[in-house]
Amino acid sequence: MECLVREDAVDKRIKVDLALVHYPVVNKNSEIIGSAVTNLDVHDLARACRTFGINNLYLVTPFRDQQRMIGEILDHWLTGYGSEYNSNRKDALSIVKICDDLEQLFAEVTEKWHERPIILATSARQCPKTWAYEKVREKIFAGDRFLILFGTAWGLSPVVIESLDGTLPPLSGFSDYNHLAVRSAAAIILDRLLGDWQRKI
Amino acid sequence: MECLVREDAVDKRIKVDLALVHYPVVNKNSEIIGSAVTNLDVHDLARACRTFGINNLYLVTPFRDQQRMIGEILDHWLTGYGSEYNSNRKDALSIVKICDDLEQLFAEVTEKWHERPIILATSARQCPKTWAYEKVREKIFAGDRFLILFGTAWGLSPVVIESLDGTLPPLSGFSDYNHLAVRSAAAIILDRLLGDWQRKI
Repeated sequence: MECLVREDAVDKRIKVDLALVHYPVVNKNSEIIGSAVTNLDVHDLARACRTFGINNLYLVTPFRDQQRMIGEILDHWLTGYGSEYNSNRKDALSIVKICDDLEQLFAEVTEKWHERPIILATSARQCPKTWAYEKVREKIFAGDRFLILFGTAWGLSPVVIESLDGTLPPLSGFSDYNHLAVRSAAAIILDRLLGDWQRKI
Repeated sequence: MECLVREDAVDKRIKVDLALVHYPVVNKNSEIIGSAVTNLDVHDLARACRTFGINNLYLVTPFRDQQRMIGEILDHWLTGYGSEYNSNRKDALSIVKICDDLEQLFAEVTEKWHERPIILATSARQCPKTWAYEKVREKIFAGDRFLILFGTAWGLSPVVIESLDGTLPPLSGFSDYNHLAVRSAAAIILDRLLGDWQRKI
């Protein structure tokens, strides 16, 4: 297990990791399932994470064939033809790590930061123990460690959500529609927490 | 050409369209090209547009085979098996329209709104005639019509960008990396312009 803190040209106050969870998540019937890894999730989330100074993007799946597939995608872009074709993609995907389960994930980030980070879930539904975005943003830039979990399929298992330190509020616009892709939701949440809009918006 | 304004349960002040442009865009060598349509762009952008009250998502491509492919995707989700499997996806994809080129796009939105909207480009680079996000947000909720253009590949042709009313500022975090997916960038920009974070952030 590698436990080094990455040292890129990002704001040194940011000590935040993101995890995309494929098990345990729920399907449309609220049953606990393990979902398949989506190639474009890996690319889009890695690029967004790298843009917003996230330390590592963890992909959580217990399935060995899925882990092998992620390994092949990463090999292509980190050391294969992809690394020459598009070095920016190599840069983004270099922050991706694979974990078997949440227990391993929590152990790894705790070892990396020498303390257990504040672990928050995201959900399309209103959940208990909500942390406002501005509060989390303030704590991040005060140096607190955070791990933010995103669920694939129809979202993280409610049992997992309840076991964590809290939840970020659901995203919404001024409409009746509440079905963003996890790729879109993660990008928006990263911008709310870590975008430089205080300078530029 | 249909020119009806859609009537969903969205905030009636919002009169904004979004377009994903596949020609004219540039490749990594800054040459003008026509790009291929990406299935997941259509889904992710439609879901984000529907969340944030966008009236129509226009896909601009002059290639008939690409238009046919989009048509098949839409048929599957609007009237085929997909419409039963996931009615939320049907709802989102119902706002998608196809245009041959920018000229047709501009004519269609002008006819729909009974006036030419303010047309803004997006770019990962700093461009002339920048409009601050907060200024555009204020004008949207004051009832002004807007059309926001996103380029695929390495972005909109510079000639197109210069010909429009202005450009939204590039997105960035506190890092040295500036290569978001268009899916991620569009989601963030929609949240900045149309998210209900004034109530909830």
